[in-house]
Amino acid sequence: MSSDRLIYLPLGGAGEIGMNAYVYGYGQPGKERLILVDLGVTFPDMDTTPGVNLIMPDISWLEENADRLEAIFITHAHEDHVGAVGRLYSKLKAPIHARPFTRHHAQRKLEEAGQVPEAVIAAGVYPQVIDAGPFKISFLPLSHSIPESSGLIIDTPAGRIVHTGDFKLDTTPVLGDPFDEDLWREIAKPGVKALVCDSTNVFSPYDGRSEASVGAPLRDLVKSAPNMFVATTFASNVARVKQLAEAGEAAGRSVCLLGRAMRRMIQAGVETGVLGDFPKTVTVEDARDIPRGNLMLIVTGSQGERRAASAQLSRGKYLGMTLKEGDMFLFSSKTIPGNERGVGRIMNAYSEMGVDVVAESDQYHVSGHANRPDLQRVHEIINPQMVIPMHGEHRHLREHAKLAEQAGRKSLVVVNGAVCDLTGDAPHVVEHVEADRIYLDGDILIGAMDGIVRDRIRLALNGHVIVNVIVENDEPLGEPWVELMGLPEIGLSRAPLVDVLEEDLGQFLMRAGDKTLRDDDKLGEELKRIARKTANEEIGRKPEVTVVVSRLEG
Amino acid sequence: MSSDRLIYLPLGGAGEIGMNAYVYGYGQPGKERLILVDLGVTFPDMDTTPGVNLIMPDISWLEENADRLEAIFITHAHEDHVGAVGRLYSKLKAPIHARPFTRHHAQRKLEEAGQVPEAVIAAGVYPQVIDAGPFKISFLPLSHSIPESSGLIIDTPAGRIVHTGDFKLDTTPVLGDPFDEDLWREIAKPGVKALVCDSTNVFSPYDGRSEASVGAPLRDLVKSAPNMFVATTFASNVARVKQLAEAGEAAGRSVCLLGRAMRRMIQAGVETGVLGDFPKTVTVEDARDIPRGNLMLIVTGSQGERRAASAQLSRGKYLGMTLKEGDMFLFSSKTIPGNERGVGRIMNAYSEMGVDVVAESDQYHVSGHANRPDLQRVHEIINPQMVIPMHGEHRHLREHAKLAEQAGRKSLVVVNGAVCDLTGDAPHVVEHVEADRIYLDGDILIGAMDGIVRDRIRLALNGHVIVNVIVENDEPLGEPWVELMGLPEIGLSRAPLVDVLEEDLGQFLMRAGDKTLRDDDKLGEELKRIARKTANEEIGRKPEVTVVVSRLEG
Repeated sequence: MSSDRLIYLPLGGAGEIGMNAYVYGYGQPGKERLILVDLGVTFPDMDTTPGVNLIMPDISWLEENADRLEAIFITHAHEDHVGAVGRLYSKLKAPIHARPFTRHHAQRKLEEAGQVPEAVIAAGVYPQVIDAGPFKISFLPLSHSIPESSGLIIDTPAGRIVHTGDFKLDTTPVLGDPFDEDLWREIAKPGVKALVCDSTNVFSPYDGRSEASVGAPLRDLVKSAPNMFVATTFASNVARVKQLAEAGEAAGRSVCLLGRAMRRMIQAGVETGVLGDFPKTVTVEDARDIPRGNLMLIVTGSQGERRAASAQLSRGKYLGMTLKEGDMFLFSSKTIPGNERGVGRIMNAYSEMGVDVVAESDQYHVSGHANRPDLQRVHEIINPQMVIPMHGEHRHLREHAKLAEQAGRKSLVVVNGAVCDLTGDAPHVVEHVEADRIYLDGDILIGAMDGIVRDRIRLALNGHVIVNVIVENDEPLGEPWVELMGLPEIGLSRAPLVDVLEEDLGQFLMRAGDKTLRDDDKLGEELKRIARKTANEEIGRKPEVTVVVSRLEG
Repeated sequence: MSSDRLIYLPLGGAGEIGMNAYVYGYGQPGKERLILVDLGVTFPDMDTTPGVNLIMPDISWLEENADRLEAIFITHAHEDHVGAVGRLYSKLKAPIHARPFTRHHAQRKLEEAGQVPEAVIAAGVYPQVIDAGPFKISFLPLSHSIPESSGLIIDTPAGRIVHTGDFKLDTTPVLGDPFDEDLWREIAKPGVKALVCDSTNVFSPYDGRSEASVGAPLRDLVKSAPNMFVATTFASNVARVKQLAEAGEAAGRSVCLLGRAMRRMIQAGVETGVLGDFPKTVTVEDARDIPRGNLMLIVTGSQGERRAASAQLSRGKYLGMTLKEGDMFLFSSKTIPGNERGVGRIMNAYSEMGVDVVAESDQYHVSGHANRPDLQRVHEIINPQMVIPMHGEHRHLREHAKLAEQAGRKSLVVVNGAVCDLTGDAPHVVEHVEADRIYLDGDILIGAMDGIVRDRIRLALNGHVIVNVIVENDEPLGEPWVELMGLPEIGLSRAPLVDVLEEDLGQFLMRAGDKTLRDDDKLGEELKRIARKTANEEIGRKPEVTVVVSRLEG
């Protein structure tokens, strides 16, 4: 008997919704040949990552073992699955397999990062097989909320794995392949060792709804609007954008796409052949001359992104277009938790303009993820030996594991960095590797633990005091000089805070002994301590303090 | 005919959910005698107000006209209605009227701010009348989500105003007075000029649910829990806390209240007589010795507040209590938009401990605000000449106004700072006064527009570069010195960012002409420009830059 083993190691996506990166390995322990499934990003927020541009998985473990990496597979073109390919490819350099629509986006990411786009190879679908070391992989077409979403059938010497990617069970998905139960049963037939499965909607107890179900309500709504109609949705939800455009066409409206991502996605759909019959659109230049009642805009920014078209229009004119009283604005989307304030700002701005906003309605949006009953159905169809929940925060993974266990299946919550051995009858974690986050900060990749962002959060919460002292021949030269940023100018004593700080620091300097004055560290520490104490007395807050000591030799 | 007029002027709460402060006036234009209804706070967030402690309405207009202010009325003890009383009372100095439970809290706010608590006078309820200049005011008991919530019946020479405060129509509110339709009809009978009405739930199309409806589900849930049961809710929702405690008692559990606000609220309820028969509780010291299966904790922190008991317990031991695998944690609450991330963090931390979290379930929580059908019902019962929506973001106010207009009533969206004349047949805005926000920042009150918080946001997004230059007799002395905070240490050229900045700034200084070196402003501007340009080349970001030029005379 061989001691080869089959391992599963999430480096992202198992403990968060976003930043997906899942490693599978097969071979002798520590020498397994590897494949990577997805390489996505997640997005920063002011609470935890102010100023950060993008958040990516820390793939340093994979980088160290890049010689063992056979190939990378991208399940679909959402940013949380493909977004880090450009920035991180140079650390891995393995061939990337993706279906044409996804490939289109992965190639653009590589080009933007100065890499050769040829690294991405166009993949066919099951029963076509891609060989990658000990693995044989097929793309399984399924429905989600972007064209050509796929699961992966991963055959290994230790058995078959079905990795769902993001999915729902939709028999009328508008675009792409409908859910085909017979196909899934065929895949299950040889026996499936592990179902590694999307957990996003495990808390949604209702049956999933089809993309097609929003068509008629959309047509009725667009028809009912007396003036201009504007809709936003995720640009990547090409089926939705198509349904919106068709609703516009059916109401006799000219359709104009606003926002770079929106135009790019539709173009990608046409170029890759996934989108055959998209209604004719007009340019924004032409749109300006069309009577408002005959016009429909489909725009980016359903999550309240400040620079997207929705937000720009809510602040006034955008590319010559302006919304007016009596226009209607539809969010054909769900607000992702954390984005409520940004979306709310836009809704209120439209309300001030007299625009009628339709939002948070199930009639005009369906989720792209399988709800709890659909997850149960997939467990039954695939009938795997074990269920490994992925694509979820810890609470989603845990609930999903409980769901599987309730049906008598083996399951385990495997979080980022946990190496899980799937070889035997039950999954078990055998070791942990580093799997934190890295930030794209401006143009630089920094570690989440580097303290750089922590310092920025401190500046935001506490403000900044800069103390400047000149020491000549170990004697203070003149008075200390203080600058403030982000702090009240006047404190409780009603005197300028700068003056009070300079006074207290000056007093200290006058009394300071030679030993302190000679020691930069000690002098800096003392000045910082006094500045914080004085500030706390004056304004009730201990600011961040930077002390600059300049030494002159006379 | 007199030219006296009746005005309504929201200074907070009309354009946000929070920070309520509504002025009514009657008399000659510009000389109206005034009353103020509520004086609340709203809460800061990292996106817009990092480091701010509390946000209050800018009442400078009212402060300037404090000699015309007859009295202040507080409808109920929620922070968004009473929270600014302590900090702002000294600017107004008018008597404050509140019912006993609300008074208890208002007095504590005054004491904490060093004011005399006697300023708050205990009010009875309708038909008792309080005289305040030309106004005659009665407190109308109604149900909300805190004891002794009240509307106000405000009689003026120009007619009766009904100001609802926050309310719902609950015939079984568990605590306090049930909705009494006959009483409301009696109040409406003389004719009501204006209904100034809560708009929070105008988008909720379903019938409101009673507080009593959560009792049975809570009892079943607590009974079903095999190990320790922990519940969180808004501490001020005393009826809910009572129902939770009763569910614990019914399941044979000892009940322990954790968190200062929780104990304070229950104590206030007992002391003011609103809470007669609260179950016996145990101290946390005693709780430690009680078997887990016989214990129930009711804790603060339903909104994910970092320092509240929920969050502390999710991070480990708190006051000797620890949650364990198999315990159950209930959020008997709704997550307020904007708090999703904080609440999610807690849920995931509990999930990691193996604690079963029950959250976001309508079974265990009901709203304290009237839904759309209930608002329509109140419009019908009160049958006012005009409906003025309040307590809502702009979109809530607008929707509420549309709802009233659809039923043939006059209505108008009146936002913070708008002086609305209610004297005639229809409301109309006659002028605007300053009505922004002020921040409690540490111990200091600062204006929202002062730029202080804007600077902190910039520091958080961009980081801070400090440039220190010494000029002696208009010649640079030595090299420039650079300090960084919140920025990557190494840039694209792989050299330390500090070194590259010092090099570029030094080059500039060497070449700088006398005119530049003599002019502090010009020198500072140039150094800042260069620092930003170099940083942008090195790290792809333009930081905030503070330049300190020290001048020596040799």
